Amino acid sequence: VTRVPVARPDAIRRHNLGLLLGQVHRDGEMTRAELTQRLRLSRSTIGALVAELTELGLLDERVPSGGVRAGRPSHVVAPRPGGPYAVAVDLDITHITTAAVGIGGHILARHVVETTGTPPGPREAAAHIIDAASVLAAQVDGAARPVGIGVSVPGTVSRRSGSVEFAPNLNWRHETFGAMLADAVPPSLPISLGNDADLAVLAEHLRGNARDCDDVIYLMARIGVGAGIIANGRPLRGYEGFAGEVGHNVVDPSGPHCHCGKRGCVETFIGEQALLTLAGRDEAATTESVAKVFADAFNGDPLAASAVRTVADALGRTIASLVNIFDPERVLLGGSLAGVLEFARDDVVRALNRDVLGGSESAPQLMPPGLGDDSSLLGAAELAFADLLLDPVGSR
Amino acid sequence: VTRVPVARPDAIRRHNLGLLLGQVHRDGEMTRAELTQRLRLSRSTIGALVAELTELGLLDERVPSGGVRAGRPSHVVAPRPGGPYAVAVDLDITHITTAAVGIGGHILARHVVETTGTPPGPREAAAHIIDAASVLAAQVDGAARPVGIGVSVPGTVSRRSGSVEFAPNLNWRHETFGAMLADAVPPSLPISLGNDADLAVLAEHLRGNARDCDDVIYLMARIGVGAGIIANGRPLRGYEGFAGEVGHNVVDPSGPHCHCGKRGCVETFIGEQALLTLAGRDEAATTESVAKVFADAFNGDPLAASAVRTVADALGRTIASLVNIFDPERVLLGGSLAGVLEFARDDVVRALNRDVLGGSESAPQLMPPGLGDDSSLLGAAELAFADLLLDPVGSR
Repeated sequence: VTRVPVARPDAIRRHNLGLLLGQVHRDGEMTRAELTQRLRLSRSTIGALVAELTELGLLDERVPSGGVRAGRPSHVVAPRPGGPYAVAVDLDITHITTAAVGIGGHILARHVVETTGTPPGPREAAAHIIDAASVLAAQVDGAARPVGIGVSVPGTVSRRSGSVEFAPNLNWRHETFGAMLADAVPPSLPISLGNDADLAVLAEHLRGNARDCDDVIYLMARIGVGAGIIANGRPLRGYEGFAGEVGHNVVDPSGPHCHCGKRGCVETFIGEQALLTLAGRDEAATTESVAKVFADAFNGDPLAASAVRTVADALGRTIASLVNIFDPERVLLGGSLAGVLEFARDDVVRALNRDVLGGSESAPQLMPPGLGDDSSLLGAAELAFADLLLDPVGSR
Repeated sequence: VTRVPVARPDAIRRHNLGLLLGQVHRDGEMTRAELTQRLRLSRSTIGALVAELTELGLLDERVPSGGVRAGRPSHVVAPRPGGPYAVAVDLDITHITTAAVGIGGHILARHVVETTGTPPGPREAAAHIIDAASVLAAQVDGAARPVGIGVSVPGTVSRRSGSVEFAPNLNWRHETFGAMLADAVPPSLPISLGNDADLAVLAEHLRGNARDCDDVIYLMARIGVGAGIIANGRPLRGYEGFAGEVGHNVVDPSGPHCHCGKRGCVETFIGEQALLTLAGRDEAATTESVAKVFADAFNGDPLAASAVRTVADALGRTIASLVNIFDPERVLLGGSLAGVLEFARDDVVRALNRDVLGGSESAPQLMPPGLGDDSSLLGAAELAFADLLLDPVGSR
C-alpha cells in the first residue's frame, strides 16, 4: 500500500539519532564524513545529530590528530568514555559471567562467579546477578549509568512470556526468571532474556565472524548443545521463540543414554561431557577440565587426541544435517566445538562432506566465533542496548 | 534512513494495480468496497484501478444479483474467465502433472503423463512439458494466453543459476533444465523452477492450511522426502536456495541402506518405498501402489496397518527433530505422509511428544495440506504469475 507514514519532524529526528548511534555502536569511531555518507543525510543534519548525542552523554567528538592534509579534517565521532553501559550476563551451568559493556561493545569490567556443585536455581542465579551488578557499578566510571540487564540463558526463553521454559542442564522448567530479576532491581533497569546460542549468533552477525553473512548457523557446545540461526539476514526464532534446540535431536537410537531420557541425542556425541568421557576422564565438564583435554591432545596424548577426533566426526555429521536443512553460507563453531575445529578440522570436514547432500560443493565455511567465548555475553549486552538504540532520547 | 522513495505517479499506479490484482488472485472475487477497505485507497482510485485491470483483460466486474438492500450495491470484482493462465508443472519421479491455472488459482485444465520405467532425463522431461503446454492450450479458452511456465522439481534448484543441482531420485545433477525449457519456447513465455516442497508451502501459505500461519513446515514424502519451510512469514531458502533437504539426514547409522550411499536417512524410514517394503510389497512406489497400502490398512490388513504405524512412529520422531530446530506453529504433512496422518495420527503424536524437547506442550498442530496433492503444482503456478502480479502492465 502506498501510504507514506506521517513524517513528524521529532519522530524522524529521534529515529535518525538511533541510526547514527547504531552506526558508531556497531562499527566504532568514525568521521562525520563517513556518517554523512552512510546515512545519506546532509552534513548539517549529521552535525546537529552528533551534537545532540554528545549532549545526551552518549558520544564524543574530537578533531583527529596527526596527518597533514589539505582542507579541514572531519571530526571523529566515538562512544563517550564513561557513557552508559549494559549489564550483560552469560548464565552458564558452571559459572555466571557478568560484564559492564559500553556503547561500541567494549567490555569495561567483568565479574565471574563459579557455581560449584549443583547448578544454581533461578533465585540463586538472580541473587548472583544482582550482586554482580553492584560489583560492576563500583568498577566502572563513577558517572556511568547502566541502561538495562541482558541475560543469556542456556535454555529456551518464551518470546511471549519472557520466562525460561526449559533449561535441561540447569534443571529449570517454566521459571519466571525475568520477573524474579525485575523484582530485585529498580524499574529504570529493564531486564531482557535470550537463549545463549541465539544471542551468540546475534553478536557475531553484528561484529564477529558473521558480519557480512546473512545465512549463518552458530553451533555451540558447552554442557548442552544449541544453535543460533540467522536465515536471510534475520534471526530464526520460531513461534514461541524456541528455535535452534538441536542438542536433543536423536541421531542414533542405540547411542549413549542422555539425561533427557532418550538415547543418542546430538549432545551425547558432541557435548562437553561426551568429550571428557571419550577421553577417559571421570570428571564433570568445567572450563578447566575441557581445556585440559584439548591441551593434552595438542601435547600428543593419544586418548585425548582420539577423543577430539571422535567428537570431530560426530560434529561433521551434525553440521551436515543442519546444512541439508538450512543451506548456510557459514557455520560458526563455539564453546568446546571451537577447540574441536582447531585440533581436528580435517576430521570435521571429511565427515561433513561425506554426509551432506551434494557433497563437498554444498559444504559451508567453518569458522570459530570472532568474539571468542564472549559471543553470548556480548549478545546479551545487545538486548540491554536495544531500547537506547531505538530511541536515544526516549529511553533516558 | 528517512529518504522517501520518489513517488512517480506511474510507478505507484502500477504497484497498486499489482496489489489489487494480488488481492483478487489470493482471495477470489470481492466487492469494490472490500478492496477499498483492504488497500486503504479512495473509492475513485479503486474504481480507476479496476477499470484498468478490466481493460487489460485480467479482471471482470459485475453488479451482484439478488438481495435487496438500501443503496447502490458495490460491484463484484473477479478474475476474468478466459484471462491469462499459468502453465504449472509438477515434475514427480513417476508422473508429470501439467495444468493451466487461472488467476485466482483455479485449475482450468490438467494433463498427466506417467513416466514408466526409469525416471525421465532432463531433455525428456522438457519435451513432455512442451507437449503438455500445447495440449493445455487447446483445452483452455481460445483467447486465453499463457503468462509463463512454473516447474516444481523434486530436487535442489540453485537460486543463483536456476539449474537443478541435485535431484537424487531423478538421478539428475547440475542440469541446466530451465535453459533447456527456455530454448524450446518463445521468449514471451518465461520459465521459473522451484523445489517441490518449497512451492508446496508457498501455495499452502497463500491459500491452503498455512494461510494464517507464519511459522510452518510442509514435510512431504513421495519417493523422496523434503521440507518447505516458512519462518517468521518468509520462505527459508538458504544461501544457494537448497534449504529444506531433510530427507537425507541420518537418524540411525545402522538403519536401512539408502540409495544415496549412506545408511538410515530419513527417507529410508518415512519415504514411500519404506512404506511399501514394510508392508511386504516388492513393488516400485507409484500413486497406485502407495494408495493400495493405505486402502488395505483401512480395510484391516494387519501387515499394511503395521507398516503405516511403523512409518507413523518414525514420522513423529522426524517431526520432533524439526520442531526442536524450528519451533513451528503448524506442520503440514503432504504426499504419502497425509495418509499416514489420517490412518495413524495417534502414533505420530505419541512419537512426537516422546521425542520433542519440552514434551507435548511444545508440539505443533499437525494437518494435511489444504490443497491436497496439488500444493506443489499450485506453488509452481505462483512462480509463473509472479511477474504479472508485480506489474500487470509491464509484463504484458
